Amino acid sequence: MNEIKAMLYGIGAMGSMIAKYLLAKEGIEIVGAVDIARDKVGEDLGTVLNTNERIGINITDDVDSVLCEAKPDIALLITSSFLRDTYPQIASIVEHGVDVVSTCEELSYPFLTDKMHAKKIDALAKKNGSTVLGTGINPGFLMDTLVITLTSVCEKIEKIESIRVMDAASRRVSFQKKIGVGLTVEEFRQKLTRGEISGHIGLEQSIAMIADALAWKLDAIVPDTVAPILAEKRITSAPEVEVGKVGGLRQKAIGVSGNKEVIALDFRAYAGAEQEYDSITIKGVPTFTQKIQPCIHGDIGTVAMIVNSIPKVINAPPGLLTMKDLPISSAALGDIREHLGPQKWLQS
Amino acid sequence: MNEIKAMLYGIGAMGSMIAKYLLAKEGIEIVGAVDIARDKVGEDLGTVLNTNERIGINITDDVDSVLCEAKPDIALLITSSFLRDTYPQIASIVEHGVDVVSTCEELSYPFLTDKMHAKKIDALAKKNGSTVLGTGINPGFLMDTLVITLTSVCEKIEKIESIRVMDAASRRVSFQKKIGVGLTVEEFRQKLTRGEISGHIGLEQSIAMIADALAWKLDAIVPDTVAPILAEKRITSAPEVEVGKVGGLRQKAIGVSGNKEVIALDFRAYAGAEQEYDSITIKGVPTFTQKIQPCIHGDIGTVAMIVNSIPKVINAPPGLLTMKDLPISSAALGDIREHLGPQKWLQS
Repeated sequence: MNEIKAMLYGIGAMGSMIAKYLLAKEGIEIVGAVDIARDKVGEDLGTVLNTNERIGINITDDVDSVLCEAKPDIALLITSSFLRDTYPQIASIVEHGVDVVSTCEELSYPFLTDKMHAKKIDALAKKNGSTVLGTGINPGFLMDTLVITLTSVCEKIEKIESIRVMDAASRRVSFQKKIGVGLTVEEFRQKLTRGEISGHIGLEQSIAMIADALAWKLDAIVPDTVAPILAEKRITSAPEVEVGKVGGLRQKAIGVSGNKEVIALDFRAYAGAEQEYDSITIKGVPTFTQKIQPCIHGDIGTVAMIVNSIPKVINAPPGLLTMKDLPISSAALGDIREHLGPQKWLQS
Repeated sequence: MNEIKAMLYGIGAMGSMIAKYLLAKEGIEIVGAVDIARDKVGEDLGTVLNTNERIGINITDDVDSVLCEAKPDIALLITSSFLRDTYPQIASIVEHGVDVVSTCEELSYPFLTDKMHAKKIDALAKKNGSTVLGTGINPGFLMDTLVITLTSVCEKIEKIESIRVMDAASRRVSFQKKIGVGLTVEEFRQKLTRGEISGHIGLEQSIAMIADALAWKLDAIVPDTVAPILAEKRITSAPEVEVGKVGGLRQKAIGVSGNKEVIALDFRAYAGAEQEYDSITIKGVPTFTQKIQPCIHGDIGTVAMIVNSIPKVINAPPGLLTMKDLPISSAALGDIREHLGPQKWLQS
């Protein structure tokens, strides 16, 4: 079997990490790299990735030429969190009959943001034999797929609560900027108003996906409330944060049914978090708490989720799918082609 | 849509709990109950369940008559842990084009025990349009499905370890007998040799399912080693256990690759366990530990897993499937028919 041909669309921080992982991965090759940044177009992918090696793939802003000439099996779309940006990109890929896996947060459960465009993608994908999936560590796993999976041991559920606590000090500078590390409270509020602090995107998508999986009809999904978390002691890790300045943020989103909070997702990312964890508490029959320690690193987890989803998406029927529609997710260890095709035992 | 018609095959302790849950569940009805026990045949199901109510279903030992006359959509098979017992039962159900969900531990990954019969079931199921699944809390979820799901955040994995610790004091007497609670060490060894202490069944199946999902080629699955756990202090909960007598047991099974333990499953059930939990540790990129507290109660979890799997199995294509082949598992809350059919958002 030939190697799986992958096209990378978006060579930013996350796209670069995925590219490096793919270059080391057996059974898959990068056949095209797309980005619109002026300083990247025309450069060899290796130059942009700082690998000190020519890879022989020039970054281009011409998506169609890659799709027509390199004929990828799958496109990894790592451009934007928002469906308004990724919709035309997905449509252009799907028209070529190519599968899509994307980090686009809104695509993880696109029916919430824009049902019309979700239905258009689904129809176009089915017409052209493509499968489309939005995934990542969160949304995509920690606060939705894993929550849904854990519900399967339950006879009854009254409430689901999930908390993610991460220490922003050990994360990328671009991530720290997204959550306002080091700002004054006033600067934080201004940047939040201007949309310069985006924080975490996807809590509402995760709530909607959980509710759909459980056939819960929610009366409302109360959108993220974003609040700064202030440093209570001086943080000396990079970047330094003075006492009283912003260490990061806390976001909560809630799913409401009959005036009760039935799903509560609580995201906290700040420099100086003493304990990093991902927890899920289900109150029902039975009641239990599940805790992952340390919390799954966002970058590592997203690279893994995207690449591990590739064989699942290639195996899946055409259409716009979400994580809850695919077989249970798993690590595509070793040669990724080993994870293609029907049940292995039947062939042996 | 009519209610889902379920046939119960095996009205023992677990079958009775499943029956009671189904009687309270919306969207599904029990249309037949099969058992071979002389004291149950001919009795109303309500009498056997001690519900103080006639249900109008007489327990019969004639499977074919239920299959022909009541025409169930699905059979819940709760008769034996072993494929040698359940194979003819499954075959007889599948020949009628009826789906099967079973607690049979060996059926959770049947290719390990008996690939020939697994292939026969698969062929028969495909010929008759039936789907067959073995599941439960363990095997079926805690030490396989959940482990596999958690691997999806990983780029690399060196070792997987899962531990289940349960306090046997709060469990059924029949379960306590299975693990030797209250015996002397000598009695324990004798009963183990005679097969009267069966302990937990399914560790090897769980290891094989994990390895299959990860495309790991194991050199060996080292079967369960069963050891008694002795009471270190007097256990006063029922049944009482003197110091030095058997409180329960510990079982370990290991998956080996290249002389390394790559999968280690460790099951401990004993009266007096101070902390009950289910844990999974993955060493790799990233390394993390996941812990569920308290451990999921085996009976509640198995009832949930069996019933929650019903819509997944009805939705699935024909054949012999395992948990790793189905969409991510989830609680079928409310009316179980809400969980049938394609993605809900497409219809709205």
